Amino acid sequence: MRGVIDIPDHLLGVQELILESLARVETRFDRQLTSDLPPVDEMCAHVERYRGKMLRPTLAVLCGAAVREDLGDLLAERAFDRVATDAHIAAGAVCEMVHMATLVHDDVLDEAAVRRRGATVNTLRGNEQAVILGDYLIASAYELCSVFDSPVPARIVGRASTVMCAGELLQLHHRENASLDEATYFEILDRKTAALIGASCELGALCTLGFDQTESDRVEAVGRFGRGLGVAFQIQDDLLDLTGEESVVGKSVRKDLEKGKLTYPLIHHLARADARTRGQTLRLIQSAARTDAAQALRELLDTTGSLEATRQTAARLVSDSKTALGGLPEGPGRDMLGLMADAVIDRSF
Amino acid sequence: MRGVIDIPDHLLGVQELILESLARVETRFDRQLTSDLPPVDEMCAHVERYRGKMLRPTLAVLCGAAVREDLGDLLAERAFDRVATDAHIAAGAVCEMVHMATLVHDDVLDEAAVRRRGATVNTLRGNEQAVILGDYLIASAYELCSVFDSPVPARIVGRASTVMCAGELLQLHHRENASLDEATYFEILDRKTAALIGASCELGALCTLGFDQTESDRVEAVGRFGRGLGVAFQIQDDLLDLTGEESVVGKSVRKDLEKGKLTYPLIHHLARADARTRGQTLRLIQSAARTDAAQALRELLDTTGSLEATRQTAARLVSDSKTALGGLPEGPGRDMLGLMADAVIDRSF
Repeated sequence: MRGVIDIPDHLLGVQELILESLARVETRFDRQLTSDLPPVDEMCAHVERYRGKMLRPTLAVLCGAAVREDLGDLLAERAFDRVATDAHIAAGAVCEMVHMATLVHDDVLDEAAVRRRGATVNTLRGNEQAVILGDYLIASAYELCSVFDSPVPARIVGRASTVMCAGELLQLHHRENASLDEATYFEILDRKTAALIGASCELGALCTLGFDQTESDRVEAVGRFGRGLGVAFQIQDDLLDLTGEESVVGKSVRKDLEKGKLTYPLIHHLARADARTRGQTLRLIQSAARTDAAQALRELLDTTGSLEATRQTAARLVSDSKTALGGLPEGPGRDMLGLMADAVIDRSF
Repeated sequence: MRGVIDIPDHLLGVQELILESLARVETRFDRQLTSDLPPVDEMCAHVERYRGKMLRPTLAVLCGAAVREDLGDLLAERAFDRVATDAHIAAGAVCEMVHMATLVHDDVLDEAAVRRRGATVNTLRGNEQAVILGDYLIASAYELCSVFDSPVPARIVGRASTVMCAGELLQLHHRENASLDEATYFEILDRKTAALIGASCELGALCTLGFDQTESDRVEAVGRFGRGLGVAFQIQDDLLDLTGEESVVGKSVRKDLEKGKLTYPLIHHLARADARTRGQTLRLIQSAARTDAAQALRELLDTTGSLEATRQTAARLVSDSKTALGGLPEGPGRDMLGLMADAVIDRSF
């Protein structure tokens, strides 16, 4: 969320903690991927162009900070590496690696050509390299998991990854299904997006509290916060895929439509439109690659108030996830998490 | 290796141990993949058709047995589950899952249509499902790794997987390279094939000796044995890809050639053939999909003795890897490992 949010003065310390920690995560990330084989290093260099908001490492560090009672004191002492220990940094790098792996494989599945303003690995180097790069990232993530001296992180990350794959598959299964209902759609999001973000939050908290604290209320609270935030984030992405411009969003837009993936605004609309409008919408979806089709589609969506309803749903999810923060100690960690949640629905990229 | 080897009487006990243990590995494997989502279970059902020799679980169980001094007594008591504990079974299932994941992704990379006498997942369900299924298998393997109460298995399996990906990439990098030398080829095999087989052996031994014994001579010995066996196994596969028939081998043959992958017999031949023969061979490789081209190719390979040299190389590798067994206690475990090594070069499938 770097540079996205206006930070009030009392959160400048926690912002500094995040910036410093993210730099450490990047170093750890790169070190883990370094190989003795030049072709491997060459391939991994492509990962840099995928590096984006670093949401998952940010949450790992911030949740690790927010579960402490003494955060204010430590920040005042600028004892950043006592708040974000090497374990927090490794946890952040692991979650980011798993996330990158899914991005690389997703782009193969989606045949996407642009990601974060650069050509995707599959476009530049072919699907084969993209499949292997994704596998290499996942394997590196698990190898890094073994620094923890506890099997708990491997279990949490492994579990989140299987859940993500299941969500991916469920989505594939419902491709071209024009009757996809909201419940199934949320089921997909819970698995595909929320699981890893929730896991990043839990892992960060456990790095502070100890890996035997998996049942702790605070761990549960940050997990719930993260999962809610993840779903809100994806719903906002759905909006951007329909209403955003590639030059602003920084990745291929309208890809969801082209691949026959219904997103929240369309599911909302198709469930409410009359038969004639529904027919029009479905025809437009089929020609979604055309820019004028996208404009016509937005107009149809407005007849059922579906874009506005999507915004409201995202806002409600953000508000619910902030409720989960009630279980954390008051202070700059909790406040920063709240601010990040608000930023999710304010972003245009 | 079930049903492949004639078993002498004094090894019937250890054979029974293996058969019983493999049945437990299958159950553990299936249980780990079970999902609450019908489309996931449906997809996983495809994995069954990939199930083959179960080499890696066999080695995990057998190496776990072979490092014990008291194996003979335990087998006489038929105390199979004291030899192959739940940890050995989980280790076997983890290694088999990682292996299956690479098979599924390999078939996407190779565009292979037949694997173990059945259509491949990519052919039946598309590349997208195959990519996700591979990811699901890897994630499930790591989740299962967390049953061990030690981070060592995750480190060993994670390390083996990153090494495998690097090997895969190195192979891709040298595709269509007609000057690929033997040293680079062995480098590819060491990574792509040997690493996981070696890891299966080490993990099995560690399940018996304790996860703090990673530096033990016996663990090192079974690791070395496994890596040698893995390379021998692959070189034998190279021979079968050139000389075997799809109906016997049970998977697509001549795929290596079609995808521009040079294998040991061809590397040996191209390094020794005169300029004219070399040209003929390279032209034949390009038309390798034709059955008559394969026959002509075999005849050219015989002019440099390359098929025979391949057989000898595999035999030398098997002999070397059996030397590593010298560090293990005498007994049925060690003898069975030796017998398995011999079987690698006697197989026609």
